[in-house]
Amino acid sequence: MGTRKVPEVVIRRLPVYLRILEELAADGVEVVSSSELSLRSGHSSEQIRKDFAHFGAFGTRGVGYRTRALARRLERILGLDRQRNAVLVGVGNLGTALARYLVGHPGHHMRLVGLFDRDPDRVGQEVDGLEVQSADDLAESALSVEARIGIVAVPASQAQKVADDLIAGGVQTILNFSPVKLRVGADCFVRNIDIMLELQSLSYYVSDREISRSGKPHGR
Amino acid sequence: MGTRKVPEVVIRRLPVYLRILEELAADGVEVVSSSELSLRSGHSSEQIRKDFAHFGAFGTRGVGYRTRALARRLERILGLDRQRNAVLVGVGNLGTALARYLVGHPGHHMRLVGLFDRDPDRVGQEVDGLEVQSADDLAESALSVEARIGIVAVPASQAQKVADDLIAGGVQTILNFSPVKLRVGADCFVRNIDIMLELQSLSYYVSDREISRSGKPHGR
Repeated sequence: MGTRKVPEVVIRRLPVYLRILEELAADGVEVVSSSELSLRSGHSSEQIRKDFAHFGAFGTRGVGYRTRALARRLERILGLDRQRNAVLVGVGNLGTALARYLVGHPGHHMRLVGLFDRDPDRVGQEVDGLEVQSADDLAESALSVEARIGIVAVPASQAQKVADDLIAGGVQTILNFSPVKLRVGADCFVRNIDIMLELQSLSYYVSDREISRSGKPHGR
Repeated sequence: MGTRKVPEVVIRRLPVYLRILEELAADGVEVVSSSELSLRSGHSSEQIRKDFAHFGAFGTRGVGYRTRALARRLERILGLDRQRNAVLVGVGNLGTALARYLVGHPGHHMRLVGLFDRDPDRVGQEVDGLEVQSADDLAESALSVEARIGIVAVPASQAQKVADDLIAGGVQTILNFSPVKLRVGADCFVRNIDIMLELQSLSYYVSDREISRSGKPHGR
């Protein structure tokens, strides 16, 4: 089960290992070395061993990890062996894209069970078979479908209200795509994905080589 | 300018500070304390001071930071005071949503200058005024528009080829939405956004409270 004390960076790597193990298992690979896991994940063998050590030792020294057993164990640690219901609020461009993606990729026991929007024009429409409901009674609706994960894809001005409603509706973790810092209690975990911030920080890694580079004629 | 040695986590926080400073400046706030920055960013005052110290001391002890001057400085560090051309490859659901978002939010000097797809049915279509071009000659096209940032929103099977082409076309940083680890040289910086992995790691934070909770009747 693990405790909350495991660093977030470790928790974020577990699904990466899980995906690799499942690919290997699908290919019939029964045992995998930590160096193979390292090669495929991009994390060092030492890092991988340390990550697993948070949950008890998993491998056999000199042999490796049993692919399927380790995959099942990671699945259990992540709670992906149980039903996880998610709802998505804000069915604009991004919300629609996310909904389509999630309906098309039902990962493990993660299930998108509700779409919500406050725009009356969107309510009643369908996205890949899932009907958009009114966000007016979001808390009640989230409760009724036993949602534990909320995906917030509304404009910044609506995000806090949506988060409050989701939490009132039993949601325990939020994936927030709105460019706003949500205020939540200690028993709700929020992860932010802000695409504009990502791009702005990537700009740092564009070197000034570009000036000399663009000095040479390109053209087509 | 900073060196590559500044930790990535620090670089990722700079655009957060920049956005807050710009909001404050727009509201006419001329000086901001590190405790106010802390409150708005969610990072501790000490963290903020440490982050800024990587680039030289920015504030005046007991006074605070001059809002506009600090914003301009962060902009310069991030290279956002210069033109940054981005191209996006893969104009499916997610790619279209990203393109619309970026065209609608031209942040600083970041500009989306090209959309590419290998599907002939999509080539020639427009997304908010930007025409989708064929990905067949992606490297040449990226060169011709002097793209430095590449956004990859293609299926996993195409992602490595797209990354190779982007790098051949002068792209130095990649924001990768494909569920695959890209192999790139040391002079290309990649950040991955994998929505399924994010959701799977969030599942860890769903507590088993849910079992007792869902024990009580909800219903509508």
